[in-house]
Amino acid sequence: MSFEFIDKGSPTSAQGFLAAGVTAGFKRSGAPDFAMVYSETPAEFAGVFTSCTFAAAPVRLCQERVRNGKFLQAVIINSGNANACTGEQGLANSRKSCEIAAKALNIAPETVAVASTGRIGVQMDMSLIEKGVALAVPSLSADGGNTAAEAIMTTDTVPKAAAVKFEINGKTVTIGAMTKGAGMIDPHLTTPHATMICVATTDAAISKKQLQKIVAANADASFNRITVDGDMSTNDTVLILANGKSGAVIEPDSPEEALFAEALLALMQNLAKRMVLDGEGATKFVEIKVVNARSVSDAKLAAEAVGNSLLCKTAWFGNDPNWGRVVAALGYSGAQFTAEKCDIYLDDIPVVKNGGDAGTPEEQLLSAVKKREFTITCDFNEGAADYWVWASDVSYEYVKINADYHT
Amino acid sequence: MSFEFIDKGSPTSAQGFLAAGVTAGFKRSGAPDFAMVYSETPAEFAGVFTSCTFAAAPVRLCQERVRNGKFLQAVIINSGNANACTGEQGLANSRKSCEIAAKALNIAPETVAVASTGRIGVQMDMSLIEKGVALAVPSLSADGGNTAAEAIMTTDTVPKAAAVKFEINGKTVTIGAMTKGAGMIDPHLTTPHATMICVATTDAAISKKQLQKIVAANADASFNRITVDGDMSTNDTVLILANGKSGAVIEPDSPEEALFAEALLALMQNLAKRMVLDGEGATKFVEIKVVNARSVSDAKLAAEAVGNSLLCKTAWFGNDPNWGRVVAALGYSGAQFTAEKCDIYLDDIPVVKNGGDAGTPEEQLLSAVKKREFTITCDFNEGAADYWVWASDVSYEYVKINADYHT
Repeated sequence: MSFEFIDKGSPTSAQGFLAAGVTAGFKRSGAPDFAMVYSETPAEFAGVFTSCTFAAAPVRLCQERVRNGKFLQAVIINSGNANACTGEQGLANSRKSCEIAAKALNIAPETVAVASTGRIGVQMDMSLIEKGVALAVPSLSADGGNTAAEAIMTTDTVPKAAAVKFEINGKTVTIGAMTKGAGMIDPHLTTPHATMICVATTDAAISKKQLQKIVAANADASFNRITVDGDMSTNDTVLILANGKSGAVIEPDSPEEALFAEALLALMQNLAKRMVLDGEGATKFVEIKVVNARSVSDAKLAAEAVGNSLLCKTAWFGNDPNWGRVVAALGYSGAQFTAEKCDIYLDDIPVVKNGGDAGTPEEQLLSAVKKREFTITCDFNEGAADYWVWASDVSYEYVKINADYHT
Repeated sequence: MSFEFIDKGSPTSAQGFLAAGVTAGFKRSGAPDFAMVYSETPAEFAGVFTSCTFAAAPVRLCQERVRNGKFLQAVIINSGNANACTGEQGLANSRKSCEIAAKALNIAPETVAVASTGRIGVQMDMSLIEKGVALAVPSLSADGGNTAAEAIMTTDTVPKAAAVKFEINGKTVTIGAMTKGAGMIDPHLTTPHATMICVATTDAAISKKQLQKIVAANADASFNRITVDGDMSTNDTVLILANGKSGAVIEPDSPEEALFAEALLALMQNLAKRMVLDGEGATKFVEIKVVNARSVSDAKLAAEAVGNSLLCKTAWFGNDPNWGRVVAALGYSGAQFTAEKCDIYLDDIPVVKNGGDAGTPEEQLLSAVKKREFTITCDFNEGAADYWVWASDVSYEYVKINADYHT
């Protein structure tokens, strides 16, 4: 049993899902800024969210759906207003947004979820939600997934959607997904974070309970491993809807469930990687692996310290094989390890041996660090625990984007 | 009893201290890169250091001095080579450096301390230490403090030295100090950090034990409160020497000791603030105050999250009164507080009220954030605990400096 990626896959690759992306007017630029994903039948669902104390209104509403809801049938996403720090009015507006969509789709309001991204602290202009819904509903189509992916972008430069398929008992199961997020991206917590939104769809028949377990575990091994700027957002949302249209039933703790989880993980990692590659101003994709640590938490502290180090990130931007900064970040990370046992590799090239210069000629290191993608492996030589993160660099463009953009 | 700052104060403002700054050749630029501070008589001393796992050789040697030594009489500082990640050879070289200086000064090697800053992972060229000592010893002078402050600079744009004086029983006590450090600066730990070096001198008669207690407490309220880039260094060193030349004796737990501690704190805060103002590429000095938190640790988590947030730092650079990023940082900081009770002020202007927009016109916020210095106060309205940090912004120049400079 295995799975494969589908060419130009998206949330509408899964059977029975329609989507649309339209211009409601949240963005001054006139670019598409409102998306809708719709399942022809009520779908099992699951979600994981930011753990920010200032969780935005739409996040609080989605959490309520996950706690109390049985099915979802539609998700609406607007880009341009985060509806965060908007108090009870904000929550009422999120609820009203779902009601507007539900009415237009002729479904129950509690089967609609909402995600928002954009500026914090501004009340929703509800006429834009009305307009978005009015435009999106007649535009819903079985190949609208990529258009929807465009409409949820903020500082993203490319839309990010994908889908995977695999066979279960002769039936083809498809999982599709789209994500947005290029800034406020950081891997410090156990729930997804970053101004990231991911809406996934599948035509597998699988329960809410199974989905919740799988999505939470997969988020820890995908979206929770990426860092652009070390800032977590108020609005992070990952939702998955399963409508069972493929007829393939996935039993709990079955080999089919394992395959489903594996395929979904590949999909989420694919999108997570593309979020880093499209990180604000990013010119590099750096995988940081800490291996043979005493514990996973030590490995995690160390990998995240390097991935979030502003000095490492600017060195990568400068094509500077500056292992001193990697060593400094490992050293202040709080991870327990012995400096004198630590080896570091840039791809497969030894950089640090026993805590000191490995003596590799600088030209060799330079040619590795000049590549768009490379791996830094920190071997603590002390235990059996590993952890990895994916990080972007910090460039002039990053500063420009964030000195100009009002979140 | 009170104290005052001395015009053009430096480590040689205190009686019986000489200093020199010379060009030994560590820096390719030919700028001064070797400093010596010398007390005419053996001095009581104290020190606090980086807690980085990869603590550099000179730090390890200084820690040995603090543990086992009775007096210090000289400190040598080189800029251009950190002597970090250099193994046993590095430690032997630090020891040898002290011996070279001791021989030239005709004092005991164990009364010499060494601090280094610059590139990590390169063995010391000991001929440069020989040269630095040979040039510095004949240049030692009672007004050499500011020249020494110049010689310890790396990416600093201005030398940073100061001195305070006060009366004790009719005798004038002086405390002088110099610091360097403009990058690898972060306040996350309980010992000083950042590639920061501070050498302080005083002519008060005060014991090693008293000094150690006062310096550690003061570091927590000065150098540990500043952040430029969130990166801690392998080489952070704060040393103070007290030679008793003023004749003013400071008894433990006396009002005089309190005055001494207070004056030294003002000196250390003065230098800490100037380090932030001179932070790499810095265009802003931002004080972040968290007040009325449930605990100091909550207030500290929250203040440091804002001070280290790349999104906040780039917003400040862009003169953007973007309170959404402040709120997001508070929210992910891990601090316990209630979003709906949180108020935020920009200087004295209300920005956030009860977790939402306070409704202040944007022009008013803009005029505050355009200033070179401003304060962000986050009032949790829940308890009585406060904490503050000082932070710089992140500019194009920061990226330029760190994409180009090899630490």
